[in-house]
Amino acid sequence: MAFRDNVAGAYRVVQDEICAALAQADGKGVFEEELWEREGGGGGRTRVMQLGDVIEKGGVNFSAVHGVLPEAVKKAFKVDSAHFFATGVSIVMHPGNPFVPIIHMNIRYFELDGGACWFGGGIDLTPHYVIDTDARYFHHLLKETCDAFDLSFYPKFKANADDYFYIRHREETRGVGGIFYDRLKPDNTGLSLDHLLDFSVAVGNTFVPAYTELIDRNRDREFSERELEWQYLRRSRYAEFNLVYDAGTKFGLETNGRIESILMSLPPLAKWSYNPQVVPGSEEFNTLTKLKKGVDWV
Amino acid sequence: MAFRDNVAGAYRVVQDEICAALAQADGKGVFEEELWEREGGGGGRTRVMQLGDVIEKGGVNFSAVHGVLPEAVKKAFKVDSAHFFATGVSIVMHPGNPFVPIIHMNIRYFELDGGACWFGGGIDLTPHYVIDTDARYFHHLLKETCDAFDLSFYPKFKANADDYFYIRHREETRGVGGIFYDRLKPDNTGLSLDHLLDFSVAVGNTFVPAYTELIDRNRDREFSERELEWQYLRRSRYAEFNLVYDAGTKFGLETNGRIESILMSLPPLAKWSYNPQVVPGSEEFNTLTKLKKGVDWV
Repeated sequence: MAFRDNVAGAYRVVQDEICAALAQADGKGVFEEELWEREGGGGGRTRVMQLGDVIEKGGVNFSAVHGVLPEAVKKAFKVDSAHFFATGVSIVMHPGNPFVPIIHMNIRYFELDGGACWFGGGIDLTPHYVIDTDARYFHHLLKETCDAFDLSFYPKFKANADDYFYIRHREETRGVGGIFYDRLKPDNTGLSLDHLLDFSVAVGNTFVPAYTELIDRNRDREFSERELEWQYLRRSRYAEFNLVYDAGTKFGLETNGRIESILMSLPPLAKWSYNPQVVPGSEEFNTLTKLKKGVDWV
Repeated sequence: MAFRDNVAGAYRVVQDEICAALAQADGKGVFEEELWEREGGGGGRTRVMQLGDVIEKGGVNFSAVHGVLPEAVKKAFKVDSAHFFATGVSIVMHPGNPFVPIIHMNIRYFELDGGACWFGGGIDLTPHYVIDTDARYFHHLLKETCDAFDLSFYPKFKANADDYFYIRHREETRGVGGIFYDRLKPDNTGLSLDHLLDFSVAVGNTFVPAYTELIDRNRDREFSERELEWQYLRRSRYAEFNLVYDAGTKFGLETNGRIESILMSLPPLAKWSYNPQVVPGSEEFNTLTKLKKGVDWV
């Protein structure tokens, strides 16, 4: 079996396990599955939960596609290959309770004819209200996962996430970050492809313990109209990031990807009020002071 | 007085008159004004109405800025000038009643050192529900305004609007279009700068009769949760267009413009549900069939 089939197979299992764990954690919501095929080759399994007990809207998508490399991608990747293979799992969860954070995960593998191939991905957390103990718990888990492979991974990938998940026009990070990495190969990591696959799957497997714990901690916290309004505002910032900056989203829109799967990441309900103000010293204010690069959460 | 001061002066009056007429039409909402100054030179008057009787959120912004041309703009305009002057009026209105359409207008004048200068702008209509008689009324008014200056304007500028206000990844137009033009100069129109200013102001003056009529026709129409849901969905498409494609928005974000004035155009409340379906033959379905380029509304 080709290595890429190993990767796709492992990613399918990651999708299955995450969906099972999330459905159990939610207790009410179910994932609706859509199988789709890509005209140029390959396809995917989109799984979406809406109006669950915890998850207001969330998706866990698997895809494995191949074919002729679109011109836009050749340009973006600065490569000359004719064919590509790409597989990955992508997750975004928008919870209903403003104290449960939004979470995003992606693990992916890319291959070009000629033999070039690499892994990319990451997990990051976007709390509507930053809760220090939750952010620390989240980053500790990620560090543990990274440290098992290379002690240099967490600090590098944490800094990458700070840089990547940044809403430049707001001068704020999307949330409390996490890890983000791309183009991991044997020659720039010293790890074999098999080990890199292990790392990628380990990142995938960190999702469930990370998120279910944060769900458990916060799902029953009471909230009022005020916290909901703030949640809708933070969601609008999330939508801004994804539509203006996110490379995966832009890439998908430019290459005629499956629109509903790509934009599954957008929030179920978002508000843009004009020039909203926060009261100094409030929890909302406190959150804004923490949406900065370079916060050390471990 | 320099010509550009004439333009800025005329645009200020356009802003004043539109605000007065809109406040009167709304009957309840008031425009809150913020004066701002641009670090590099010039400034503006941002006027926003929120939670009016008709207007849920809307802004009428005037600005006149000048200074050193940002590198990004030099590139975009393919010019080598060091200094620029720009003035304009920008409007977006998001009404509360789903039967009242969203409207957008922009008139602008741009000048570079060395003497290059031009006018740009347009008005376009984004009904949540396309009402043929309203769309025809709107386009007739625009045609009248255009025809008074040049019979070639309306057909050209109408086609421009179809092309420009297009959500490529959805394969639908943002609404029923209108007119859109750019780089109007004496040498490509045969009109003097003074006449082009007259045209620009005439476009600005078309806003009030166009929109107040559509408000009057629809403001008291009853609606239910269903129409509201559809409105929130259409607003999410509006947000997608503005954040992904709109040149003015991108330009503003890239050149560190005043964020709240730039993103004033975003809807007060928007919904992204996953893969929404419309019932064939319904009013929502009917609207989708009309969000196409090339519909002849006159």
